[in-house]
Parts: sequence; C-alpha cells; structure tokens
Amino acid sequence: MKTYQFQTAGKVVVGSHSSQHTVSYVRETIGTVKSALIISQPSILKSGFLDNLVHDLKQAGIGCQLFTSIKPEPTEAQLTEIYNQFSEESFDVLIGVGGGSVLDATKLLSVIFTNSSGIRDMLGADLVGQAGIPMVLIPTTSGTGSEVTPNAIVTLPEEELKLAVVSRHLYPQLVLLDPVLTLSLPPSITAATGMDAYTHALESYISNKANPISDMFALESIRLISDSLVEVYENGSSLVARERMLLGSMYGGMALASSGTAAVHALAYPLGGKFGITHGVANSMLLTHVVEYNMDSIQDRLAVVASAMKLPEALEPSSSRAAEAVVARIAEWTRVLNIPQNLRDYGVQEEHIDSLTLAASKVTRLLNNNPKPLGLDDISGLYRKLLAAPC
Amino acid sequence: MKTYQFQTAGKVVVGSHSSQHTVSYVRETIGTVKSALIISQPSILKSGFLDNLVHDLKQAGIGCQLFTSIKPEPTEAQLTEIYNQFSEESFDVLIGVGGGSVLDATKLLSVIFTNSSGIRDMLGADLVGQAGIPMVLIPTTSGTGSEVTPNAIVTLPEEELKLAVVSRHLYPQLVLLDPVLTLSLPPSITAATGMDAYTHALESYISNKANPISDMFALESIRLISDSLVEVYENGSSLVARERMLLGSMYGGMALASSGTAAVHALAYPLGGKFGITHGVANSMLLTHVVEYNMDSIQDRLAVVASAMKLPEALEPSSSRAAEAVVARIAEWTRVLNIPQNLRDYGVQEEHIDSLTLAASKVTRLLNNNPKPLGLDDISGLYRKLLAAPC
Repeated sequence: MKTYQFQTAGKVVVGSHSSQHTVSYVRETIGTVKSALIISQPSILKSGFLDNLVHDLKQAGIGCQLFTSIKPEPTEAQLTEIYNQFSEESFDVLIGVGGGSVLDATKLLSVIFTNSSGIRDMLGADLVGQAGIPMVLIPTTSGTGSEVTPNAIVTLPEEELKLAVVSRHLYPQLVLLDPVLTLSLPPSITAATGMDAYTHALESYISNKANPISDMFALESIRLISDSLVEVYENGSSLVARERMLLGSMYGGMALASSGTAAVHALAYPLGGKFGITHGVANSMLLTHVVEYNMDSIQDRLAVVASAMKLPEALEPSSSRAAEAVVARIAEWTRVLNIPQNLRDYGVQEEHIDSLTLAASKVTRLLNNNPKPLGLDDISGLYRKLLAAPC
Repeated sequence: MKTYQFQTAGKVVVGSHSSQHTVSYVRETIGTVKSALIISQPSILKSGFLDNLVHDLKQAGIGCQLFTSIKPEPTEAQLTEIYNQFSEESFDVLIGVGGGSVLDATKLLSVIFTNSSGIRDMLGADLVGQAGIPMVLIPTTSGTGSEVTPNAIVTLPEEELKLAVVSRHLYPQLVLLDPVLTLSLPPSITAATGMDAYTHALESYISNKANPISDMFALESIRLISDSLVEVYENGSSLVARERMLLGSMYGGMALASSGTAAVHALAYPLGGKFGITHGVANSMLLTHVVEYNMDSIQDRLAVVASAMKLPEALEPSSSRAAEAVVARIAEWTRVLNIPQNLRDYGVQEEHIDSLTLAASKVTRLLNNNPKPLGLDDISGLYRKLLAAPC
C-alpha cells in the first residue's frame, strides 16, 4: 500500500468580513510584526479594501509598503523588479490580496527576499533553500486554490514558457477566505476561475497519485462548486454561494497539493506561456476534451463524481451512463458560462500545434499523473479539437 | 454569517511502514536536528519499534534519550518528574509514539521545556506563551485524534480533576499514521478508542460551533469508522481497515479542533478525574445516552449522519426514523464491542452522583457547545442512566 501526505497553510479563517480583522489574525497567528509589504492588483486597490488595511496596520503601529500593480500571470522580470524596488527594506510579513497571480507573486517574493539564489534556480521541486518571509494570503477569486498549495507559476515570455516553483516553503502562515471580497468579481472571471477550481478537484480525483485524503477534498470541492458555480455566474451577490465557491476552490488546492494535477494542466501551460491565455481559461477550454480522452480509464471514478454532483444518472447501475453525464454537464457549463471554446480566438493556428505539443509533452511532472498515457499524437489531437470547436 | 477556522499539524504522512522512515521525514519537515527525546509507553517498547527508531536516529548522527513509561491519563506529577529528569538536556525534537496519553504528554512536555511557567499556569485556553520544541507524533491507537488538536489533558488526582491545556503551540510539526503500528492493539482498546474517535466526529457534527469545514471532516470520519469499527474489533489484522480507522480518528481530531466537542466530553472528564475511567471508555459509555438526550434538537443532523453510516433508514423520508437508527447502531456497537455500560463496575455509587454532576457542570467550555442546554438535573439524570445500565 502506498504512502501519501497532507500539508497546508498554517491557519485558515473563513467568513464574511473576516478580512476586516486581518491585523488581529496576523498578531494571533504570526505574533508581533513591525513592517508589512502588501502585494495586490489594481482592481483591489480601486475597491478601497487596501486603504482600510493600511489604516488598520498603521493604527496597530505596523509600518507598511504597497505594490498594487501585479499583472496577470506574473513574469520573472516583474518579480525581479519588485524585489529590486524593496530590497533595501525589511518586512516581517507579506500580505497578498488578489487572484491567483497575486498569490503566486506573493509566495515567490516571500522566498526571493530570503534566498540568495534567483527565481531561475528555484524552478522545479524542492529547490528553495530557506524559509521565506511569513505570508498572509487573501484570495479574491475562487480560484486557483494557490493559498493552500506549495506551487507558484512563473511566466518566462522570452522562452514562451510557464514553469512552477514547488516548495514546502511556499505555504502561507495565514489564509483569510472572505466572500465579501469576491462579490464584485465580473461574471467572466467568476466563470473561468470557478471552472479552474473544478478542474483542480476533478484532475486530483482522477490523478494516478489520488489518495484517500486528496479524494475527500476533491469530492467536497466538486460538491460545493457543482452546487454554486452557475448561481454565482448568474447572480454574483449571494454571500452563501460565494463562500461555498471559496471553500470549494481551497479544497481543490488542498486536493492537488496532495495528489498533483494531470493532463489538463500539462496542456494548459503552453497556452499560457505562448499565447497569454490565462490559467483558468486554458484549463476550462481543455477540461471536457481531456476528460473524454481519459474516459475509458476513469469510468468508475467519474461515476463517484456524478454522485457528488448530484446528477440523476449517478443512481443508474451503469457507471458509463454516470460518467457520460459528468462530461455532458462540464460541456454544458462551458456553454452556459460562456467559456471561450476555440483557440483561434487567441491567435492559435494549425502551424502552432507542433510546438505546443512539444512543450506540453515536456511537462512530465503532470503528464505522469494522468490516468491514461498521452503520446505526441494524443496531445496534438486534443489541441486540434480546440481549433475545430465552435467560436 | 459566522467565522470559523481550521488549523492542523504541519505535515501528515499516511501509509503502512511510513514510521520506518521517521528520520527522513523529520529531516524533510523539521530540518537538521541533533538530539531527540522519545516519549512512549511500555507496550511500544516491548514491540521493538523503539529499538529500530533509536538505531535509525544514531545512524543519522542524532543523539537520543528515551522515556517509555508514560502512564494512562498523565498526571501533573508525572509530567513534572519527566521534565526534572531531562531539564539539563537540550532537545531539537520530541518524538511521541503511543496512544492519546503519550501524545498529550509529548505536547505538554514540548511547551513545558520552553516556558518558564508551570503546567498549572497553562491550564485553559491560549495561556501558553512560547512555542514548544518541535514535535513528531506517531499515534498507535485510533484514537483521540490528539495528533491534530490543540488540546492536551492533564489529570490532577488530588483535585479529582482532568483539565485541558488548549494552545496553538500544541500542534505538532509532523504526524505519521502507520497502520502497522496499530495491528497489535488488543480488541478492547481497539473498541474503546474507536468509539472515542466516533464520538469526536459525532459531537463535532452536532456542536453549536459546527461549521462547513468541521462538518466535512466529521462526516468523513463517521463514514470511515462506521465502515471499519466492527471489522477491526473482530479481525485486527486488516491493514486496510486499520488505515481507515487511523484516518477516521485523525479527521475526528480535525473536526473537533475546529468545532469543539460537547456534553459527552463534559460528562466524561469527571469520570476520568475521580474514578480513573479512561477517556475512550468514558466517552463510549456516555455516547448513546447523550445522543438520546439531544435527539429532539438534532434530528435533521442525525439523518445526515445516518446517510454517512449507510444506514438503510437514511433513505426514508422521515428524519426521525433515520436519527433513531443512528442511536440504535451506536447502542448495538456498545454491545457488540463489549464496551462497559455500567458505572458501578468502576466503583461509582449513587452517593457520587452529586459531586460528578457538579464537576461536569463546570465544564462550560464544552457544555456551551451542546445543541440542547443541560441543567444539573439533566446531567445527574444521564449519570444515573449509567448506574441503571446492564452490568
């Protein structure tokens, strides 16, 4: 019998308005801090949340600096620039408030500040030498689940690549899940990030490294997201549904931290690195096709997923009917949520397929987790489906 | 809407024979260590496991000391004695291998070594000032779930009390769940500790502080334990069932760490403090009666429990039938597993009821979590049921 592991953020606090008490949670969890660096993105700055946070930090005698211009899918260059801007300063805590790109940037900066090696030397698994500056992560999408994973993605535009730093030093000390912060998320981002979270859960559940712990988180994530995804897309103002999505997204992260993801993610990275397609959209576009490709290897597992999704077909004796119902529901979501379906919308042409395929075939860390092996022809066949899909 | 939290051990490793790699997991998780104190109990010493552990530590250049005489339900006096024995030494890690008493003793020693205040000053919530020595906890029962809770229980025999230290500093850095170590557990201890684990899950699920995170862990714990409890009692040699019990016990601990337990635990503590009834047996004896007492407040929740337990009554439209089926199954387990049912077997008489009742009524930390309030008459009524039960 195999060995499996579970590791997560130091503490998770969930609840509406919990982020208004960030300073007291920081003290309770991390202890006395004197200086903070807040890392965020323009939309959060506009919301006014950061003004309140800065005010509370100052009230508590904690000095703080802000960097609020994280761009989607952070590049090595941007991270280096931020480090250079603040390298003379000393911070006791980094507070990341934003979507997956902000969370990943915060995680990377945390260890860039404390390690003499650069980002390039950390790319890969377990190559971060020293623990980083303690972190608080406050996700504003549901989402990457990055707040509870040891992974952070860096874009290397020159090489047209997206690569991962994977390290136990990338877990934050504190996570705050406040659904209030996700209320203003536009429907298109709600949809793509929600599908991304579902993808994490589903890929974790069918991963070759799936185990009883990742299964629990994956199925709970699937339950929560299936219940709420269309609702938050159509009516973003439900705090109950928004909280369920944040939980579902976090559980997706917990699942993948234990089991790894698989072919959807392997094929999504080149689309991000070469064509700038965001992680959530790339995963969402690929999901139906990759699940269909895997179908004959995962029918029984998909029947369990059908049950977690409360699909009526889950009650039928045949697991194939239940599995097909899962694929049909994912395809239906893709349409209802207006997820882009054709790679041509992003400038991908037939002539790019070979290089995309080659790049994806190198993501063996994830391809090895896939329940059904993928050769070059299988990978290119999947990309071609996304060229033939309706625009 | 309310706020809730989740916090757990730094890392959890699960799998048969995982404990044979304790030293490499320690290095991976805690880093370089030079000296270890192993805390354990006579039965584990006899098993030979500690010889191997000491050998591996020495091979790795890690000096180690052993204390292998932890008695059930550790007292303040024993903990002080151990501290005095080793107070001149300096340890980088404490490794606790054993049942709940060993785990609690290890957690308490960890912070006794680093805090100038004594145990008495730490009794209560959040009264431990400094972080302790890093800990590895390796449970050999399934069990208290203590490996993932912030609680440790101290017996004060002079005062006939059992009291809790509750602190975020009591979470270990590393937990190893190795079912091989539980194979030799005698049926009576398998039964009482298994019922204890189920009690943690059930009380967490019906606690006033139950929340979506504790619910997930509680229901998964209930699923696993219901599947395997009778099997491990009747045939202790199944590694699959033993692993499920260890996971179920850990999830019970994760649930109660988030939601707290309730009246069963409040009434169990005085039975331990005054009559030396072990925690698992005391909880098991009380469970059926307390659930019956709570019944009218928790019928709908028990119907969900019935479903997790795969009881056929869960499919009926009436939640009352499903709830009654849960109580009936617990009562059946009490008989099948030969759990003691009558307090007279432990020397409790009618004349003791008033003082037991008074002591239980003071455990307001847990009584406040109970879904139905308990007055003095309610508490004494419950104890009296345990005097009238079949011997």
